[in-house]
Amino acid sequence: MVQAYILIQTEVGKAATVAETVGAIPGVVTAEDVTGPYDCIARVEAATVDELGKLVIARIQDVPGITRTLTCTVVHV
Amino acid sequence: MVQAYILIQTEVGKAATVAETVGAIPGVVTAEDVTGPYDCIARVEAATVDELGKLVIARIQDVPGITRTLTCTVVHV
Amino acid sequence: MVQAYILIQTEVGKAATVAETVGAIPGVVTAEDVTGPYDCIARVEAATVDELGKLVIARIQDVPGITRTLTCTVVHV
Amino acid sequence: MVQAYILIQTEVGKAATVAETVGAIPGVVTAEDVTGPYDCIARVEAATVDELGKLVIARIQDVPGITRTLTCTVVHV
Amino acid sequence: MVQAYILIQTEVGKAATVAETVGAIPGVVTAEDVTGPYDCIARVEAATVDELGKLVIARIQDVPGITRTLTCTVVHV
Amino acid sequence: MVQAYILIQTEVGKAATVAETVGAIPGVVTAEDVTGPYDCIARVEAATVDELGKLVIARIQDVPGITRTLTCTVVHV
Amino acid sequence: MVQAYILIQTEVGKAATVAETVGAIPGVVTAEDVTGPYDCIARVEAATVDELGKLVIARIQDVPGITRTLTCTVVHV
Amino acid sequence: MVQAYILIQTEVGKAATVAETVGAIPGVVTAEDVTGPYDCIARVEAATVDELGKLVIARIQDVPGITRTLTCTVVHV
Repeated sequence: MVQAYILIQTEVGKAATVAETVGAIPGVVTAEDVTGPYDCIARVEAATVDELGKLVIARIQDVPGITRTLTCTVVHV
Repeated sequence: MVQAYILIQTEVGKAATVAETVGAIPGVVTAEDVTGPYDCIARVEAATVDELGKLVIARIQDVPGITRTLTCTVVHV
Repeated sequence: MVQAYILIQTEVGKAATVAETVGAIPGVVTAEDVTGPYDCIARVEAATVDELGKLVIARIQDVPGITRTLTCTVVHV
Repeated sequence: MVQAYILIQTEVGKAATVAETVGAIPGVVTAEDVTGPYDCIARVEAATVDELGKLVIARIQDVPGITRTLTCTVVHV
Repeated sequence: MVQAYILIQTEVGKAATVAETVGAIPGVVTAEDVTGPYDCIARVEAATVDELGKLVIARIQDVPGITRTLTCTVVHV
Repeated sequence: MVQAYILIQTEVGKAATVAETVGAIPGVVTAEDVTGPYDCIARVEAATVDELGKLVIARIQDVPGITRTLTCTVVHV
Repeated sequence: MVQAYILIQTEVGKAATVAETVGAIPGVVTAEDVTGPYDCIARVEAATVDELGKLVIARIQDVPGITRTLTCTVVHV
Repeated sequence: MVQAYILIQTEVGKAATVAETVGAIPGVVTAEDVTGPYDCIARVEAATVDELGKLVIARIQDVPGITRTLTCTVVHV
């Protein structure tokens, strides 16, 4: 299982709806509005790195109002 | 009372009108045009962190011409 | 209760020990090593914004090996 | 009279003392600790752009604990 | 006389035409295409800081294809 | 012969098609989807620095879905 | 097999030696000096995401002169 | 002949001496103190891209007080 934090920037005014919509996607554990250089931070899980890539590109980036996503993959060292 | 600086980026050519419009919003103490990586810096006040979030997302980000806002919450340590 | 994500950069080679040490601080719910522009992401809780500021500046930034922290306060809008 | 916001980054753990010390420098109107990508935001005034440059480089950057300063000059357009 | 470098980002594919158009604006000494995080760097002169602000916001940012400008004012310290 | 890495940001959801299309352009050796602050990283070759500039501005930036490119020229020192 | 590009920043003047030393580490396919916001770009391979994390944190970040590394994991979507 | 702008960040308080020292290096046409995210901007010339790399890494980055340099190569497209 691969886990990651997705740091999300949205169009102005869209942060609230984006967090709610992202939070409902299978594989997304939590999604919260935040202040600072990002508008929303989600924690996600996927079977492999490629599945993680698909979850981000195909599902999360498909949510209206998102302009940038930054994937920070969790590593256990 | 929670205070914060909002660092604002605007569409090209819109800095002047944005500063003026933001400055008129209740809760905004000052809003000024600046050079550097930001176009306008506003100083705001709100009752709680959540009220601050609403002021930024619902009111300030609603001003035409704004592309990014970055909230720097004032802390007294 | 105020919640936040703290995005942490560390000196090279120190990510693993930083995550472990930060994770043991009272008020820190989770702290994990990640890839990308940040080395560790922690989720924290505090009674007020000022308490959050003290937790970050006095406790988390005190952990050897940390070079930068970026506080993203959770807002409910 | 030229005015500017100085966005200041500090060594970890030094934000509080930096804000206090910067705040006492002649020409500095306010200096406050903040969360986000900057640790302290000061508002300053100087007679000319060159005087502003000297205030920043010779006085503010001389305060122990400061690692970066970013000058955002106020413009009236 | 106030001098500054304007670091310009453009829409993809527009760097060449932007440099040429900016270069023809009165007050712009040089404007060149570059690689790296910026697409064009211009060197400009204006009578005062406010005139510099107007040159950037009213004239340079008016050039089609520009998405961001970053003003680095020259200081003599 | 001049070589470079082109770090590419795309509109949300377009990373996959962009990598494929860029990879087919003459002069592009490889183009791969990645996580992190960039969506795709290409390795390219050109006869001169100016030819490299043309390859990036005229051909790569012409691919639909690209929003930013950052050229990192390889140097042998 | 997991692949990634590691974008490396070094202390001033150390780019050349860093690229050479990193290039000799098992798992590193190529490592080249570049201009732009990064000083060296390496392409690496590892068996899993965690092994990739160890390669970066334990081996690459151990090379004298490196100040920051940014891991961009290759995804096949 | 290859030309470039070198965007330079310095240790706090060192901007003035850095600009003066860099300005005296053969191949450096101009070097000026600036406000904004960079402390000094130099314009340089070299015979080839590799010579440009050597000028930056071996000569400019050798100047005491410099912490980061960012090379923006001029391209004629």
